[in-house]
Amino acid sequence: MRTLKFTLQYDGSGYVGWQRQATGASIQSVLEDALAKIEGRPVVVHGAGRTDAGVHALGQVASAEVESSLDDGTFARAMNANLPDAIRVVAVETVANGFHARFSATGKTYEYRIWNGPAVPPFIRLYAWQVSEPLAVDLLQRGAEAVRGTHDFAAFQGTGSVVHTTVRTITSASWHAGRPDGLLVFEITGEGFLRHMVRSLVGTLVEAGLARRPVEDMTRLLASPDRSLVGRTAPAHGLFLMRVDY
Amino acid sequence: MRTLKFTLQYDGSGYVGWQRQATGASIQSVLEDALAKIEGRPVVVHGAGRTDAGVHALGQVASAEVESSLDDGTFARAMNANLPDAIRVVAVETVANGFHARFSATGKTYEYRIWNGPAVPPFIRLYAWQVSEPLAVDLLQRGAEAVRGTHDFAAFQGTGSVVHTTVRTITSASWHAGRPDGLLVFEITGEGFLRHMVRSLVGTLVEAGLARRPVEDMTRLLASPDRSLVGRTAPAHGLFLMRVDY
Repeated sequence: MRTLKFTLQYDGSGYVGWQRQATGASIQSVLEDALAKIEGRPVVVHGAGRTDAGVHALGQVASAEVESSLDDGTFARAMNANLPDAIRVVAVETVANGFHARFSATGKTYEYRIWNGPAVPPFIRLYAWQVSEPLAVDLLQRGAEAVRGTHDFAAFQGTGSVVHTTVRTITSASWHAGRPDGLLVFEITGEGFLRHMVRSLVGTLVEAGLARRPVEDMTRLLASPDRSLVGRTAPAHGLFLMRVDY
Repeated sequence: MRTLKFTLQYDGSGYVGWQRQATGASIQSVLEDALAKIEGRPVVVHGAGRTDAGVHALGQVASAEVESSLDDGTFARAMNANLPDAIRVVAVETVANGFHARFSATGKTYEYRIWNGPAVPPFIRLYAWQVSEPLAVDLLQRGAEAVRGTHDFAAFQGTGSVVHTTVRTITSASWHAGRPDGLLVFEITGEGFLRHMVRSLVGTLVEAGLARRPVEDMTRLLASPDRSLVGRTAPAHGLFLMRVDY
């Protein structure tokens, strides 16, 4: 047996999310089916980030233990031959036994992509959230500054979550405008994230950027968490898991 | 009555092409339905390029005569409110009566987009043709050079076409590599194009770029057209109508 580390890209549009569900195709279940075909036995895949339904990935990482003697490059091609074209293995690497995509991860980077204006170009409509009214980028940036550092993000957690602690450390968080694709992008890196945390932060930041709430709300909600005072969770299809660090 | 010029973008993936067909949604029929809602009467739309099923547009132009007194900007918003998000009106302009999107056009520019390598990124799989084996860009460029100028393109015309003349003038044709999106793109501008002409040229150029035929075939096929000697027509989903000149 050896442990493989997979780097993955996927278009989350048609999937119920990373995690295997009772009904619907999940990224995990489709990967496990492809691995089972190569291995000729059931294989469990662990993902670094359990992305929600509709969330995309440009750098998701997964791990699995395999018996196959195929070299890494051949294994990657075999996987892609067995996967739908919405999911691609971009790299396979044999790593030390004990490597676990989720537990070994030391950090993750997400991007949240916004089309800020009327008439979203048809080619990005499934890959960015449309905010029609003009956003004040300076307000967005001030809100992002408040997010950096170690805070209790309890207010920005999806309802019904049960976790040991809601304290997380965000090492960088900033907005990027003026990209050639015309998108306004929030990039955030942290040691770990709560469920729905990035989308909830973006939803509240956007309300500040539209001057519908004071930007000081970000600092206030991190100092004394109150789920009822945060903004609406931004839609899934703007979110991309970009990178996992080990 | 006034004449409107529409600039359009669309994702052609789910459509039977520009032209109204007996079955299936066409870009033309969807636009005419949206216009009919605004005008309260049937309206005919003329398109500059009759794109095939699956072909995309970033700068298609259409024209129609309307009675509405809405200003151009309001008319554009009303159209977008009545259109599926795969089709967007990016500009509406009132033009001189007699303007006809197709007959008034003096030139058109197309792009054909190729992902040259294994594992197409999921986000471009519907918007580029995958050619797995490495293409020799110098051979592609030499083939493109042969295309420029005035030639009889009869060999590169879709079967079953009936046109007055198969002679067309191509003012520019070249390949572009090293783009930030990683695509290899053929850009071609001409006064007019035959049916399937760009896709047929690309299919044959790619065979030359893979060294499966001599690049001199391009010159030969333009000098003495023989439909049976051209390459396979490249798939529709790599083709974009980029611009129409007047």
